[in-house]
Amino acid sequence: MKFGGTSVADAEKIRAAARRAIRAQKQGRQVVMVVSAMGKETDRLVDLAKQISPAPSHREMDQLLSTGEQVTISLMAMALEEMGAPAISFTAGQIGMVTDDAHTKARLKSIAAEKIHKELDAGKIVIVAGFQGVTESGAITTLGRGGSNVTLVAVAAALKADLCENFTDVDGIFTTDPRIVPTARKLDTISYDEMLELASLGANVLHNRAVEFAKKYNVPLHVRNSNNNKKGTLIVHETESMERIVVRGAALKEGLARVTLNNVPDHPGVVARIFHQVAGKNVVVDDIIQTIAQNGEATVSFTVEIAELPECRQIVENLCGEMKCSARYEEHLAKVSVVGVGMRTHTGVAEKMFASLAAEKINIQNITTSEIKISCLIDRTQGKKALRVVHDAFNLGGKKTVKKKTAKKKAKKKANQ
Amino acid sequence: MKFGGTSVADAEKIRAAARRAIRAQKQGRQVVMVVSAMGKETDRLVDLAKQISPAPSHREMDQLLSTGEQVTISLMAMALEEMGAPAISFTAGQIGMVTDDAHTKARLKSIAAEKIHKELDAGKIVIVAGFQGVTESGAITTLGRGGSNVTLVAVAAALKADLCENFTDVDGIFTTDPRIVPTARKLDTISYDEMLELASLGANVLHNRAVEFAKKYNVPLHVRNSNNNKKGTLIVHETESMERIVVRGAALKEGLARVTLNNVPDHPGVVARIFHQVAGKNVVVDDIIQTIAQNGEATVSFTVEIAELPECRQIVENLCGEMKCSARYEEHLAKVSVVGVGMRTHTGVAEKMFASLAAEKINIQNITTSEIKISCLIDRTQGKKALRVVHDAFNLGGKKTVKKKTAKKKAKKKANQ
Repeated sequence: MKFGGTSVADAEKIRAAARRAIRAQKQGRQVVMVVSAMGKETDRLVDLAKQISPAPSHREMDQLLSTGEQVTISLMAMALEEMGAPAISFTAGQIGMVTDDAHTKARLKSIAAEKIHKELDAGKIVIVAGFQGVTESGAITTLGRGGSNVTLVAVAAALKADLCENFTDVDGIFTTDPRIVPTARKLDTISYDEMLELASLGANVLHNRAVEFAKKYNVPLHVRNSNNNKKGTLIVHETESMERIVVRGAALKEGLARVTLNNVPDHPGVVARIFHQVAGKNVVVDDIIQTIAQNGEATVSFTVEIAELPECRQIVENLCGEMKCSARYEEHLAKVSVVGVGMRTHTGVAEKMFASLAAEKINIQNITTSEIKISCLIDRTQGKKALRVVHDAFNLGGKKTVKKKTAKKKAKKKANQ
Repeated sequence: MKFGGTSVADAEKIRAAARRAIRAQKQGRQVVMVVSAMGKETDRLVDLAKQISPAPSHREMDQLLSTGEQVTISLMAMALEEMGAPAISFTAGQIGMVTDDAHTKARLKSIAAEKIHKELDAGKIVIVAGFQGVTESGAITTLGRGGSNVTLVAVAAALKADLCENFTDVDGIFTTDPRIVPTARKLDTISYDEMLELASLGANVLHNRAVEFAKKYNVPLHVRNSNNNKKGTLIVHETESMERIVVRGAALKEGLARVTLNNVPDHPGVVARIFHQVAGKNVVVDDIIQTIAQNGEATVSFTVEIAELPECRQIVENLCGEMKCSARYEEHLAKVSVVGVGMRTHTGVAEKMFASLAAEKINIQNITTSEIKISCLIDRTQGKKALRVVHDAFNLGGKKTVKKKTAKKKAKKKANQ
């Protein structure tokens, strides 16, 4: 069971999480809890660091931030013990949650599961600090954004857990962001691949690395709300019945910028050189589009998050100087996408998407596709509208759209009478 | 260099401590900093725990509290790096500061000094988390009250440091508490033994375990003020010249209670049994006085801190039931003491002390002595007055008392003219 920051934000919420773990244990399960830092604790620590240094070293930042989860694990153990349930808390170091030494975004290498098993077999509920790891030489690392979910899945995989529950403050995974599209519907199941696409396309519930891990180690992930007992969304391997749904969900990624390089010499290795330099600065490139070369010159464009544009611009300007090409920068872009494993076997999805956007006069500036998704780059000001249009076009809201149709049909019927 | 909680209470103080370390390094020294939790951070964590459980397990409490120092070490490293000084922070676990597993009051067993030496030799300032340790099996422990000073001395001893500076918010060790006796004077030097007596008699600057450690490993301890550059007080082995000062300091311990057992059977082992039971409940007994037995019965009395009286009372009542003796409890007591290695070779100290108290009508209820101290148990309401009287009687304030004498002499001279 993993409890995110909002689910352990204060003493009362910590007690609620403890009660949930005890209930599960009373149902005959062995329970491991993975917890995040309380509420805004990480923000508080980041603010402390900023008062000292605008760009603190990654090693010391990890040393600092890992205290957030350490506070929660000990409080959770106290809460369990106070309720009469034997418990023990572990930092990453204490259970050998070994990572590489890429501070602030470390990758897990191994977990000493036997220490956890021993305590579980002794009847204890084990609480593990999320988000953190330890290098072979004992330095504390953190796992980057969504790190606590990575911990959850990694621990579940190492223990060969039957069930892996991710408690958060929403009811599960939705067809799209309900704050933007009120008709968004909670999904009962979603495949790892669909979840991966949705997450990288802007859906904010689960970080990709956790889902990749879950897929790799075949861990079924149940995303649930810590404030109620509703069934959430089960993330599992794709089944045949899943393919009958053509589009599972839609996502919007705002705050994108596009960089276009014109007159790029059409020699082997030139494009590789561009992206090698960009990657070297840790700028994450979203989509890449290259036009067919004419007169020995090509046009290469790619999108990046707006926050990374200044750094990216510097690299591109240097390159343009060397290669004698010119660059253009466009901010204020957004990307709307639809995702579904059914696309593998169904046709007409792209046409339907483009037509629905065109009908609302939303101009498509770029199209990128994969086997199970279609993305359109559009103007940022039209982003939210586009998401609603696409969500409606594929009838993702379910009932509500059906009602509309029924109403239309009724109207037609009436007209025919 | 050790910086206590008030000396690292905020970003500005952390920077000030960092600057001091850099100055020392520029003077050609290798510098290790031991730091406490920031200001009221430990109180904040204790309060969090209390919201969860009135009596949390010691293991989890240590897991929780150790985060306080971990926050400070990382911020200190950031401050140093921001000023251009290479630095690295270490938790107790990271430098193998191994203790026994007596959580909340663990005892240090060993330190892996080579890891610190390696970083020092690489030109770094090393920051070590005070107050914490780690057991052989990797559980986090804390060293109890004054634990950061224990860390300081232990690290200094392990590294065979030339100098060990304890930065705090006072100028050094005083002849007595300046808040009670305004004429109290800062001492330039004091012996380990005198410091040990003063600390256990109520002086609050340094905890005994740190001083014991310093004495055992021959580490000269310099107690200084982090807010200025004044020379503080050097705590060292006793020298011959020190013996010329009969009384080095005076101390007051308030909030004492006395337990008196009457009609205790005068058999071997009875007294041992009483204190065995009391110690079993972790009640610290201050002084013990036993009268000579009459008619096969003795009177045993001892003092405890007032906070421990309820627990102590329970034990004593049970014992009295078994042994058919009666007990009396007196609260509102205080103990005034004078300390000095010169007492070993000088006589008349006790007389002078008793006479000075008697002259002010302060009734002495018990007297206890050691080779280098004399303590008188008195009524609590007279405690502060008694401290001033004794401090004056032994001319501990120095100059100020001299001035008074000079003034008197002048007055005499005038009268004679």
